[in-house]
Amino acid sequence: MKLTILGSNAAALRWQAHPTAQVLEIAGRTFLIDCGEATQMQLRRSKVKFSRIKQIFISHLHGDHYYGLIGLISSFELLGRKVPLTVYGPKGIKNLITIQLEASEAQLTYPLHFVELNSDTSERVYEDDKVMVDTIPLRHRIYCNGYLFRAKLGQRRIAIEAANEAEIDVAYFNKLKQGYDVLNKHGELIPNASVTLDPHPPKSYAFCSDTMYYPKIIEQLKGIQVLYHESTFLDSHKHLCERTMHSTAKEAARIAKSANVKTLVLGHYSGRYKDLEDFRREAQEIFPEVRLAKDLKEISF
Amino acid sequence: MKLTILGSNAAALRWQAHPTAQVLEIAGRTFLIDCGEATQMQLRRSKVKFSRIKQIFISHLHGDHYYGLIGLISSFELLGRKVPLTVYGPKGIKNLITIQLEASEAQLTYPLHFVELNSDTSERVYEDDKVMVDTIPLRHRIYCNGYLFRAKLGQRRIAIEAANEAEIDVAYFNKLKQGYDVLNKHGELIPNASVTLDPHPPKSYAFCSDTMYYPKIIEQLKGIQVLYHESTFLDSHKHLCERTMHSTAKEAARIAKSANVKTLVLGHYSGRYKDLEDFRREAQEIFPEVRLAKDLKEISF
Repeated sequence: MKLTILGSNAAALRWQAHPTAQVLEIAGRTFLIDCGEATQMQLRRSKVKFSRIKQIFISHLHGDHYYGLIGLISSFELLGRKVPLTVYGPKGIKNLITIQLEASEAQLTYPLHFVELNSDTSERVYEDDKVMVDTIPLRHRIYCNGYLFRAKLGQRRIAIEAANEAEIDVAYFNKLKQGYDVLNKHGELIPNASVTLDPHPPKSYAFCSDTMYYPKIIEQLKGIQVLYHESTFLDSHKHLCERTMHSTAKEAARIAKSANVKTLVLGHYSGRYKDLEDFRREAQEIFPEVRLAKDLKEISF
Repeated sequence: MKLTILGSNAAALRWQAHPTAQVLEIAGRTFLIDCGEATQMQLRRSKVKFSRIKQIFISHLHGDHYYGLIGLISSFELLGRKVPLTVYGPKGIKNLITIQLEASEAQLTYPLHFVELNSDTSERVYEDDKVMVDTIPLRHRIYCNGYLFRAKLGQRRIAIEAANEAEIDVAYFNKLKQGYDVLNKHGELIPNASVTLDPHPPKSYAFCSDTMYYPKIIEQLKGIQVLYHESTFLDSHKHLCERTMHSTAKEAARIAKSANVKTLVLGHYSGRYKDLEDFRREAQEIFPEVRLAKDLKEISF
């Protein structure tokens, strides 16, 4: 599982700072999460292949999370894209994009679908044979969802030495991976568990931005591997959280600790701070495994 | 008069290339012309002061000329702007921006006005005591205007040695600048022309993008100082001009020559070309005074 940060800042008021956009590669899929202005420029600077993105998940309709979407959709057209694209986002997003395409008299070269969301409870918005995506309803000034990405449990793994010792023909290995007992070369039935290992635990990633401190999400996040949680402010500006409905680094850490996740990724920093290490320091007072999102940083899990 | 190029490319498909946006400083005014995606990032990289921009002129509603407008308008709000902002552009632009502001529940801190255009003949869209702006109707796939910026004729200039020799008190210098004859210290009437110089010829700048080769604009451009004319293609791709309704560098040069302008600025290059000097070379076969627009380049005239 690899996370590529395209933009890691709150509404970008700093030189060279980019607003929220991330690419999550999980179980062979490439998902774009949020799409602030200039995401397409950042994508070009990253190693991510444009054409691999087939789903885009938008959290909410504040500009720093979606103003780059229309430009990306338009550039896909200029690149002659044929592969369908689906955008998941709050109700209204389809109209916002469509009227801009109409104004330019664009003729898209590929099918563009929208899945508009307005539920206040979590729902499964995407599922295929490898991965599933659920919304995480958040608390912000306007309607906002996080997204929980979970790979499905993979196949059992062959314990190759044990399987060879049991004299099982490689033709049966697929059956073994699927959990069956199989016959060896002498016609003896070999119990699956004696020649296989449990599947790797499935990867999981939760994206939670933008939101105020909202403990109700903890139940849904329990035991997931990586949590990205917004941390707009440091403790010194905690008083701004209520009005703006954002979180501090410590509040993000509290969610991570309560949900017992493995790694917390912080981001969506307010432009007022010079040293992002302060975010790490404050969060680590509560939860040790902290990574800082930074523009064009790749994090593998 | 100073032109700052924020973006100089056609729809940006190249790494680090930015779509059209320019800042024109003329007669003490600061105008933004077109506003492709990430214009606000480019503005931050330039020396232009955000707050000095009070008018934005949008040529047409293809994304590479206005997708950055909503982000800039939103950032002005975050910066607590109070000064009014007026956007000039094709009919429909107000709705495109307004519904995005509504979706984010934005409360602008400053008055935002729109002047929507749909005339096929040139009209004066802006005028104050120092400068006037007329539309230049262009020919493109959708409704599109260029803009002609002209400073007004300034005051006469004091020929300081002659004025001192004629023993004119400095208290009369303002009258001299306004063209009046004045009395000297001995009560003699001094003819204005003997102690002043003609005003500097007023600066003028025409922005013509996007457009196919369209000789009808020449009449309006006659004798202006600087012409920016799009040159999307080189001669080798001239056959693409008809369908896309763009121009070649040579066609831009032909307009410049016929209009007898002083300087031609080329830009809006297709992403297929590696060496922009080819644009200069081809244009100079027809018109010698050619400058190339490049991202973040400043050109003084």
